[in-house]
Amino acid sequence: MWNSPKVGILGGGQLGRMLVESANRLNIQANILDADNSPAKQISAHDGHVTGSFKEPDAVRKLAETCDVITAEIEHVDTYALEEVASKVRVEPSWQAIRTIQNKFNQKEHLRKYGIPMADHRELVSNTPEELAQIGEQLGYPMMLKSKTMAYDGRGNFRVNSKEDIPEALEALKDRPLYSEKWAYFKMELAVMVIKTKDDVLSYPTVETVQEDSICKLVYAPARNVPDAINQQAQALARKAVSAFEGKGAFGVEMFLLEDNSLMLCELASRIHNSGHWTIEGCALSQFDSHIRAILDLPIPPKSLELLQPSIMLNIIGGATPDSHLKATEAALSIPNASIHLYSKGAAKPGRKMGHVTVTAATMHEAETMIQPLVDVVDIMRAQRPDIKTKAAPSGPSNPVPSVAVIMGSDSDLKTLVPGLKLLRDYFGIEPEVEITSAHRTPDYMAEYAGKAASRGIKVIIAAAGGAAHLPGMAAAHTALPVIGVPVKGSSLDGVDSLYSIVQMPRGVPVATVGINNSINAALLAARVLGSFDPAIQRKVETYAEAARAENMELKGTKLRELGWQNLILCSMDLGYFEVSYICPKGQIYSGIINADNGGMMY
Amino acid sequence: MWNSPKVGILGGGQLGRMLVESANRLNIQANILDADNSPAKQISAHDGHVTGSFKEPDAVRKLAETCDVITAEIEHVDTYALEEVASKVRVEPSWQAIRTIQNKFNQKEHLRKYGIPMADHRELVSNTPEELAQIGEQLGYPMMLKSKTMAYDGRGNFRVNSKEDIPEALEALKDRPLYSEKWAYFKMELAVMVIKTKDDVLSYPTVETVQEDSICKLVYAPARNVPDAINQQAQALARKAVSAFEGKGAFGVEMFLLEDNSLMLCELASRIHNSGHWTIEGCALSQFDSHIRAILDLPIPPKSLELLQPSIMLNIIGGATPDSHLKATEAALSIPNASIHLYSKGAAKPGRKMGHVTVTAATMHEAETMIQPLVDVVDIMRAQRPDIKTKAAPSGPSNPVPSVAVIMGSDSDLKTLVPGLKLLRDYFGIEPEVEITSAHRTPDYMAEYAGKAASRGIKVIIAAAGGAAHLPGMAAAHTALPVIGVPVKGSSLDGVDSLYSIVQMPRGVPVATVGINNSINAALLAARVLGSFDPAIQRKVETYAEAARAENMELKGTKLRELGWQNLILCSMDLGYFEVSYICPKGQIYSGIINADNGGMMY
Repeated sequence: MWNSPKVGILGGGQLGRMLVESANRLNIQANILDADNSPAKQISAHDGHVTGSFKEPDAVRKLAETCDVITAEIEHVDTYALEEVASKVRVEPSWQAIRTIQNKFNQKEHLRKYGIPMADHRELVSNTPEELAQIGEQLGYPMMLKSKTMAYDGRGNFRVNSKEDIPEALEALKDRPLYSEKWAYFKMELAVMVIKTKDDVLSYPTVETVQEDSICKLVYAPARNVPDAINQQAQALARKAVSAFEGKGAFGVEMFLLEDNSLMLCELASRIHNSGHWTIEGCALSQFDSHIRAILDLPIPPKSLELLQPSIMLNIIGGATPDSHLKATEAALSIPNASIHLYSKGAAKPGRKMGHVTVTAATMHEAETMIQPLVDVVDIMRAQRPDIKTKAAPSGPSNPVPSVAVIMGSDSDLKTLVPGLKLLRDYFGIEPEVEITSAHRTPDYMAEYAGKAASRGIKVIIAAAGGAAHLPGMAAAHTALPVIGVPVKGSSLDGVDSLYSIVQMPRGVPVATVGINNSINAALLAARVLGSFDPAIQRKVETYAEAARAENMELKGTKLRELGWQNLILCSMDLGYFEVSYICPKGQIYSGIINADNGGMMY
Repeated sequence: MWNSPKVGILGGGQLGRMLVESANRLNIQANILDADNSPAKQISAHDGHVTGSFKEPDAVRKLAETCDVITAEIEHVDTYALEEVASKVRVEPSWQAIRTIQNKFNQKEHLRKYGIPMADHRELVSNTPEELAQIGEQLGYPMMLKSKTMAYDGRGNFRVNSKEDIPEALEALKDRPLYSEKWAYFKMELAVMVIKTKDDVLSYPTVETVQEDSICKLVYAPARNVPDAINQQAQALARKAVSAFEGKGAFGVEMFLLEDNSLMLCELASRIHNSGHWTIEGCALSQFDSHIRAILDLPIPPKSLELLQPSIMLNIIGGATPDSHLKATEAALSIPNASIHLYSKGAAKPGRKMGHVTVTAATMHEAETMIQPLVDVVDIMRAQRPDIKTKAAPSGPSNPVPSVAVIMGSDSDLKTLVPGLKLLRDYFGIEPEVEITSAHRTPDYMAEYAGKAASRGIKVIIAAAGGAAHLPGMAAAHTALPVIGVPVKGSSLDGVDSLYSIVQMPRGVPVATVGINNSINAALLAARVLGSFDPAIQRKVETYAEAARAENMELKGTKLRELGWQNLILCSMDLGYFEVSYICPKGQIYSGIINADNGGMMY
């Protein structure tokens, strides 16, 4: 029965605590092996806990007697004790998997057999300067000297920039089993949480991780500006790597995305992981929910691991004083959409993970904007730490992914498009991506551009063309996005040629055609499309229409009645967004009717 | 400081338990006054709890000594004890508010002073049949006889259908203080969670509640098919009602939506409430998070109370046997996007709230579809209860809100639209709303229809018209939605008149025009617009294009090469979605090229 099993957890830190949150909601008793009052025990009041360490065989044996299944929130546990108790109680994932994974060199040797791409590496046998210098010649500099065991959050790593660093490196990691790894030149660090169940290997979406001082600082879900194909490839690689191990539960897989968009495994953890905390808010089932279900053979609907909304997780890390992290917590209380998780660890040490905050929003850019003030606070806290010597991670929101692409076959069409571009940018706050690509002169680039637009996050394409005017229709043939066509008036035929070419598309490939030279309407149509799914934009479309109505009713109409038609003259003026026609008294320029701030008026 | 206060909670049931979840995540110690091992105490391991009842003055006094602020998860507490301890410790909300609210008659008399609309009601003084008969004549039948105190989940209510029921009603509620209420003929029950802070009154979105056996069964957030204006009015009414009371924290406000779309207050609770459980998944801050913050004067960003995604909450209620509710829990494990909350109450009694499940999804219809199998299980459990005599609540998903509206000025345009309508329905699975409304013959209805389309959930309008062809442009003038115009070919001018009328709109009011008579492209354009925000639809657009490519390349091209052009003839055939043109050997109908299942092919 699903509701009766007792789960034993080796380790009661924040990961164990969040596992207990999940267990509590399913009425599953979690028996924690750790010190009294450890974070996990604080939220689980019963007498089934065990006092001690996950490295003591006796304590592990004692825990095993009280549980139906045992798991671990950390890989640095006594796997020999686990091996012993595995004859009496289920251990998930298997002690073999934990033993192989806790030794990073063995982990990589094991994964190599399964064809997982990894940075080249060499084992040190004698730990002598001569041996490391020889390896340095093979791998090149810089290289990363690593402890095989007990390495986490950057501890146990030393960057060897040249042969001269070798004595210092060996001194820093002395008395440890070592290996050295070729430096990976990556453009981004990615991570995937994998859930191994009794008959399936599932994965969460690929996230981007930002490390600072070798500790996870930020996690972006999904990874920013990473095409869906790479997101899928990273998940597939992570599932393949995890499939190489026995046992059930959550595994954290960290990867490098290299300059050529290929992927390389960085390392793997046999447990719930910091890079998966965002799943508490970002998915219907969190990594903790899924881990509990996986080790108990309870169902996990794959859809429940999909991204609900873009999410950003920020770690709150101990600062210069035992309570300096509380400033970050206070700041987090005022961040919109911020879910705060404090781990109740008491006083902080510098660099200790004290809590985390996750912000979710309808778009990644909105989430970035909302969390930025908190990132700034965390950056200041870090700058005040005397123990920090490494460089700060780049901070600040990424550029928002453009939602509207505006393309034209030639720069001669730009003049026609400018009013629409200005309207999008200045009134709607939508910065369009603008590109010149011709259906006739650059057919391949045009096809590639249109073909990839959707996967880059573009939602609408505006295409302007004159004469034969093939660009809108050809773009539509290469994308599933709505394409808005603007017929440009050429030197002959008054634009009717362009109009017919754009609107009379064959069945199956539509172009949303607007009036000749009417880029304002193309821009408004794009805004209406976005507005159907973004209430703020839809309200701006309404305000724009209301301003036009007000102008027509109150200004033009009233003025006409006041002054009489015979005293008015039709003027026109370029006012930024578009050329405006208006009536004014003869011999006098009337400027009161234009109010750019409320959206401009149109004739 | 935010992290040091101790919060005392009167009551440790499921509401207290969920409050503790929120307190735990902020490192706030919650001291519970209730029986040992009550649900809230199970997830809060420390020695600050008090054993006893929230109705015992001594226990309340003892709790007050250990806390900085006291709150209650239930209104049936000893408010005289609260009044006494309020001189030493903050009580939120105020004991006065709790005392007034816990007596439903006093609650209503108090709210009446603030102009809150409510059903007419009369106090019983002597509780005699004569007195109630006299009230029956004033209020009419049916009326609801209610206990002023200790009434919740339908207990303390008796429906009096006629004068004949009076003796039974008075017997059922004997020895209780009573009042009687005029029957409210409502079309829907709505509820709003209000958060009262030290200087603000905030509200969550309005939800729809479905009661069964006088207990909350389902909560839909937001209320289904309720216009945004009513959602806002209900929130305003709820905030106004809560403003009539002193103190901080969460208040649950239940309302009736009457046939004429007016609102009437049903009742108010001075606490977190079952109708707000959906906020745990549906909003960045849950009602429990907000309550904790409000009583401690911590910031609550208003944006954090907005709806993140449509959510449905289903209560899991004790069935015929002590463990029959476990069947619902087991079923819930397989429901996609279901978050399960069990309250750890041990064995169930029939009708006891044992847990709840919340499903979130991108659309309400998707959430309804996902949760339906679980609703079915709960309905079967209920049917097996011998104690149930009342009627079951209507069950099953509501009709999905149409995302595409297709309008035409006259039924003569229907023929042109049918291919596009079939494509939307049969290939894309998008059931469009189809309506006849003319810009010339029914201008007011046309304006009203277009004006309300966005608030009803429509995302795109397709409008077909011929000749003067004003409908698409006039619809666009009355809505902020994208309007797709289909020029219909009339008896003269070959459709060019319609095309020009539709495409050459003035700046400011765009119409997305497709080719003459090309409803297929209008439908595909609508699908592309929806597909920009719905990956499943975008994939179908891609599949459609791929099928067209394959047909062109492999079937038409290959056939042409095989048989030679001189042996082929152009045929055309109506194949459901649209008329298909295809080439076939002379004298033979070739049927192999059409595969309706993969999207049909087009010429």
